[in-house]
Amino acid sequence: MFIKRIKIKELLKAEPTGQEVIVMGWVRTFRNNQFIALNDGSTNNNIQVVVALGMLDDDTLKRITTGASLKVTGNIVPSLGKGQKMDLTATSIEILGDCDAAEYPMQQKKHSLEFLREKAHMRFRTNTFGSVFRIRHSLAFAIHKFFNDKGFVYMHTPVITSSDAEGAGEMFRVTTLPMDNPPRNEDGAINFKEDFFGKSTNLTVSGQLEGELAATAFGDIYTFGPTFRAENSNTTRHLAEFWMIEPEMAFYDIEDNMNLAEEFIKYLIAYAMEHNREDLEFLAQRLAEEEKQLPADKRSELGLIEKLEFVLNNGFERITYTEAINILLDSPAYKKKKFQYEVSWGIDLQSEHERYLVEKHFKKPVIVTGYPAAIKAFYMRMNDDGKTVAAMDILAPGIGEIVGGSQREERLDKLMQRMKDMHIPTEEMEWYLDTRRFGTVPHAGFGLGFERMVLFVTGMTNIRDVIPFARTPKNCEF
Amino acid sequence: MFIKRIKIKELLKAEPTGQEVIVMGWVRTFRNNQFIALNDGSTNNNIQVVVALGMLDDDTLKRITTGASLKVTGNIVPSLGKGQKMDLTATSIEILGDCDAAEYPMQQKKHSLEFLREKAHMRFRTNTFGSVFRIRHSLAFAIHKFFNDKGFVYMHTPVITSSDAEGAGEMFRVTTLPMDNPPRNEDGAINFKEDFFGKSTNLTVSGQLEGELAATAFGDIYTFGPTFRAENSNTTRHLAEFWMIEPEMAFYDIEDNMNLAEEFIKYLIAYAMEHNREDLEFLAQRLAEEEKQLPADKRSELGLIEKLEFVLNNGFERITYTEAINILLDSPAYKKKKFQYEVSWGIDLQSEHERYLVEKHFKKPVIVTGYPAAIKAFYMRMNDDGKTVAAMDILAPGIGEIVGGSQREERLDKLMQRMKDMHIPTEEMEWYLDTRRFGTVPHAGFGLGFERMVLFVTGMTNIRDVIPFARTPKNCEF
Repeated sequence: MFIKRIKIKELLKAEPTGQEVIVMGWVRTFRNNQFIALNDGSTNNNIQVVVALGMLDDDTLKRITTGASLKVTGNIVPSLGKGQKMDLTATSIEILGDCDAAEYPMQQKKHSLEFLREKAHMRFRTNTFGSVFRIRHSLAFAIHKFFNDKGFVYMHTPVITSSDAEGAGEMFRVTTLPMDNPPRNEDGAINFKEDFFGKSTNLTVSGQLEGELAATAFGDIYTFGPTFRAENSNTTRHLAEFWMIEPEMAFYDIEDNMNLAEEFIKYLIAYAMEHNREDLEFLAQRLAEEEKQLPADKRSELGLIEKLEFVLNNGFERITYTEAINILLDSPAYKKKKFQYEVSWGIDLQSEHERYLVEKHFKKPVIVTGYPAAIKAFYMRMNDDGKTVAAMDILAPGIGEIVGGSQREERLDKLMQRMKDMHIPTEEMEWYLDTRRFGTVPHAGFGLGFERMVLFVTGMTNIRDVIPFARTPKNCEF
Repeated sequence: MFIKRIKIKELLKAEPTGQEVIVMGWVRTFRNNQFIALNDGSTNNNIQVVVALGMLDDDTLKRITTGASLKVTGNIVPSLGKGQKMDLTATSIEILGDCDAAEYPMQQKKHSLEFLREKAHMRFRTNTFGSVFRIRHSLAFAIHKFFNDKGFVYMHTPVITSSDAEGAGEMFRVTTLPMDNPPRNEDGAINFKEDFFGKSTNLTVSGQLEGELAATAFGDIYTFGPTFRAENSNTTRHLAEFWMIEPEMAFYDIEDNMNLAEEFIKYLIAYAMEHNREDLEFLAQRLAEEEKQLPADKRSELGLIEKLEFVLNNGFERITYTEAINILLDSPAYKKKKFQYEVSWGIDLQSEHERYLVEKHFKKPVIVTGYPAAIKAFYMRMNDDGKTVAAMDILAPGIGEIVGGSQREERLDKLMQRMKDMHIPTEEMEWYLDTRRFGTVPHAGFGLGFERMVLFVTGMTNIRDVIPFARTPKNCEF
């Protein structure tokens, strides 16, 4: 029976009046054969364990190295040292697991994020990644709480799918056929009837279409699950496997959709600010130090916490795509030919354009609506102008697109026409069209890339640093 | 702006004093051109909309068919009818979407579960599946709340993996290589270096090993994500894609692990009992009617709600594997040769054995510990007897194995010996072994199959009926 241990996060909230406690954790440092900084992952704050002179033999003292795991029984007393409220005066110390200092990769020096990416199985033991993943946890919980409190139903949409109609990106094949010598039809084509599901299957790029099926019965639903892109994108913003949240709401129009998305993002930030203050302060400090290395014009104008507070306290700017294009055409950057890609009505906004709008022009999150139909997916609702759709993207400083959503085309004839124009075969999508045949309703939804949200809140700059084990081209370790 | 609608679940809690409201939903029935039963998916309870004589023209009245979607504005008043607290006296009715009665598959008659499985995209609109998926939602939320309240960190372990060491089952391949003509090495073997991840990859069967990496830094973690089995099991208990919860706790032994698992299951049941009472009562009624069709000796002794209360109010029986074998050998069933499979120390307990223990002998959930090492995974901790391991399975009435867990082997030498004995290559598992090299700690964890838990709580009998879109052999629709 181990669980009578107290977690250090809880312990540090107590008033130290000499009471006996048991803590367990890993040694961060051991000074003067006397002071052990012990960490158990519940917080970045260590408990200082005080070892009385002569309490342990020399052999045991030598085994108390960085990374070793201990069970410490003792009494908590007010600390005489600076910077901590209490000490734990040890009455007994048991070494649970040794740690060879010569081999341990997580020594108490500062490691580069690149190095720690290679040691992803050990980086959880650092302050930076301790904070990042505790915040990731909080954000995930806040997502469920936000939707649960509003009466949304959480739907687990399928990961393996035979549909590729969404066209959101390249897909991974899922198969049990032997690659070496797959069964073939008479014409030589692979016989997918022999595959596990009796057809060709892939990993999902989005749960939206299935989400719409549920929303048109439950009203409000959301998904929160893994999604996949088999794209050869080796950037700081792309993963082959990432988690996405996709709420879908019946009886919502595009404006309701924007309002919900803005409320949602602010709720998540506020939740982390309330529940992860210490971790955010640690990461703010870390970011500030990191930015000292940068030339002055590359540094953020606001610190991490100030940035989050600013987003909380200001409405997101709402502009149409047409307005966005006009702002870009009027910009000094355009006039000085600083954009690499062309700017004209009809283009897909490039990262440089989004950054200009968000970081230079408005300096806050921006919701862009009314995109040209030609550059958006088939299911988005056609506006009355016949050339734009009720799409909305939310662009965030430092991140770019964090939310993509739309009001859906609920009119069967318009939807089928658009699928025909875009060469999407309707015969495999009858189940989707049924929602428009049988009591169709106006509805809308959006997708939030979870890792991009974690990036935004933690101030980290590489998406591989906010997911436990990143999957990227040529990289599938652990 | 649609969102000023009130959900029917909320509306039915209000005191009807004539106040004006807007509701939106789908028609369940329309009687006498006067009474519309409207449902919006927030509850199985409909609001009765009263249409005044002459308010709508004949054409509109004809369009109010089962499945049509409406926006109704009106006033809520105490109902004159029996069985409902309030009526909604309509002042205006707008038809949002028509529903052709001749085509609509969800008419107001009772459909078989088999039929509804074929119409999985529409079955959310029935009372049975409305209740099932609202309960599924509640259980998912309760899982997050339970662990969050205890300070566990939610970890998203990877879905795509290059590790197949756990050996929990057959795996699906994930690839972007062309099946038709994959690149080959000089020796003719497929060249997986050309595949997306530069190696052969699969869909995960468990997040446990990665979970251990996180637990040995954060202390307590849990996963909740999709897992996969490429097994050709066409049963009422198996899915190719299902969701699993895997908590992993540092400083836990097998007894702590059992205590947590029992507390967890009871918490989930209690949560559903508190938050989904109406849906549970509906499903209890449904089950009771269904069981009337069965011969008396096949019926459950307890109704659904009584069963859940019984589990809540009684400790789970805890026995060793050896005791379980002795109970089976002593049983009338064994003596009368009613078991199909042999019973002797060393066997893997078969479904018939588990059912006997749980349903006939103890009549409650049973935790079996101390399984023979030979039939369990390499990472389970060897007991001092040298032949059993600190495994624990929880068996539930009507479901069989619902939880599988163990204390993990934290001793590096014993773990490596066992891997060697079981021919598990250690070179690809250095990351896993590192947790035992660097401050190893006693730790334990378990996996709960989410759909089996939903089966247990809802009283449904086919696992395909408790996941939105089931993936099973030769079946990957929607």
